[in-house]
Amino acid sequence: MKQAAPGEFEIIRDYFADAPRGEGVVLGIGDDCALLEPPVGRQLATTVDTLVAGRHFPADADPALVAGRALRVNLSDLAAMNARPLWFTLALTLPESDREWLQGFADGLLQTAREYGISLVGGDTTKGPLTITIQVTGSVATPLRRDGAGPGDAVFVSGPLGAAAAALPVILGERPAAPALEAQAVNAYYHPEPQLALAEAIAGLASAALDISDGLLADLGHICARSGVDAELDMAKIPVASLARELAGPEALELAATGGDDYQLCFTVPEGKVEEAIDHCRQRGLTPVRIGTLVERGTGPAAGGRVRCHLEGEEWRARRPGYTHF
Amino acid sequence: MKQAAPGEFEIIRDYFADAPRGEGVVLGIGDDCALLEPPVGRQLATTVDTLVAGRHFPADADPALVAGRALRVNLSDLAAMNARPLWFTLALTLPESDREWLQGFADGLLQTAREYGISLVGGDTTKGPLTITIQVTGSVATPLRRDGAGPGDAVFVSGPLGAAAAALPVILGERPAAPALEAQAVNAYYHPEPQLALAEAIAGLASAALDISDGLLADLGHICARSGVDAELDMAKIPVASLARELAGPEALELAATGGDDYQLCFTVPEGKVEEAIDHCRQRGLTPVRIGTLVERGTGPAAGGRVRCHLEGEEWRARRPGYTHF
Repeated sequence: MKQAAPGEFEIIRDYFADAPRGEGVVLGIGDDCALLEPPVGRQLATTVDTLVAGRHFPADADPALVAGRALRVNLSDLAAMNARPLWFTLALTLPESDREWLQGFADGLLQTAREYGISLVGGDTTKGPLTITIQVTGSVATPLRRDGAGPGDAVFVSGPLGAAAAALPVILGERPAAPALEAQAVNAYYHPEPQLALAEAIAGLASAALDISDGLLADLGHICARSGVDAELDMAKIPVASLARELAGPEALELAATGGDDYQLCFTVPEGKVEEAIDHCRQRGLTPVRIGTLVERGTGPAAGGRVRCHLEGEEWRARRPGYTHF
Repeated sequence: MKQAAPGEFEIIRDYFADAPRGEGVVLGIGDDCALLEPPVGRQLATTVDTLVAGRHFPADADPALVAGRALRVNLSDLAAMNARPLWFTLALTLPESDREWLQGFADGLLQTAREYGISLVGGDTTKGPLTITIQVTGSVATPLRRDGAGPGDAVFVSGPLGAAAAALPVILGERPAAPALEAQAVNAYYHPEPQLALAEAIAGLASAALDISDGLLADLGHICARSGVDAELDMAKIPVASLARELAGPEALELAATGGDDYQLCFTVPEGKVEEAIDHCRQRGLTPVRIGTLVERGTGPAAGGRVRCHLEGEEWRARRPGYTHF
């Protein structure tokens, strides 16, 4: 006999009731609200992201991968503020309530939650076009913001760029790839690593930080805009992911500069603290790469901050801007 | 010249940057996360709700009304826990970025936010089928939960029921109504009043509470299930909204019992505290209505709690269950 499609309360009970319940969770799923005990003497950092099927992920993608990525991209925003993950909510809109899909989704979500020690404390399930909205909250002692950078600060990225953007055509089935490369592509796109350890290493030293979700140039532009500075980058220093080189060849640098979805951090450090920041990172086995320097805000019609790029003495221009949401 | 459709950053800057920014908001919209200072010695209550166009509201509805209602239904969940509103986030998925719609939506949202003293601290805008997800957070000193009720407790509702369910066919254009009735219908459906004052009046006295979003019988069933009791209701006591009587005639009681969207509170009070609870309400000009009593959990296949209804000595049965989400 075919099992009936589960209703809202069954979805919560069957798939999400065993969610990890950690520190500070007084009352989780099942009441009008979750009740939470915020950590004493800390600020909270909170962020929300929506992923729409067919736009941010293929509608027929493995639900466990989609769920894991959805949580990871939010954890990346916590990392960008140097916040320790505490709890999250899930608002899930589903075209139909399909047990197999839900089981995969819940498995991927809760496994990722356990990996990062974050508790699922509430949510909503509705019927409609497949859409996933996750809001994460963490605690912060020493926040990393976007608005503290100044002229002369060094610009760093936490690791290789371009892999996720190069992987996207493979993920979408638009470009064939050998099985080994395909596995790397799936990993690059679906398993971004929130840079929580790196954020901790640079806290109190970095003047600004954010995670690269829309592309290095666009995102560094946000630091510049919020901090009132411009940036100069040496494109020869950009750490281009080897997967990007393998999949995109001569386009790899372009992808590293403008492709989104890598979720590395971009951060700035005043010159006098660069050595200490690098030391802190090395002690944790981390190797951020210096790619440029901030400069005084130039004259001209720069509504946002301006990022100027050079490669071997010549000005370098991206052929396309960063990811646009509309 | 036609204005270009705004992109994500323009949406935030143009429509939501002037959001009220109240207590505890260290850093609002514009960074990777909002930074928040939780109130000392209080728990936090948080809840999230998604509204899908064409399912939870007509796609062509006035965006200001839709926005106001979306925030109000979430504030109702805070009221149901006796939480004071602090801050909220908005995840907005839009088929296209339409300035007129956005202006109306932002106006309705921010006006409601000011009315309830809650700060918009972050969000996400994405392209896709129109979907609104709001997460609200409040602070709680004396929480009202669903799981504290016991046999013998009195069952109350905070006010008239059935108006929103009776209004729905008018809202959807399925039923004509005279202008005066139509205005009442719009008000009943789009302007539910979060019962924050009532929650405060009964805090420390009520044994359980929730807001009636899916219909009285279904929602009281949740209190019964979580508290391990059954309920007996006198249907003659149910406060049926006059609008429900006017629009639905003999169906009004059915709508009051099973229709959703009124967002009144249903709560239970131990017999010895009933008088004090009613006094506290009266001092605030509030007149909750006693509709029944909780009883020992009966034998039989009651997976959830069971709500038995009587009317003039006869058993009364609803013809339809409460709102189902799938």
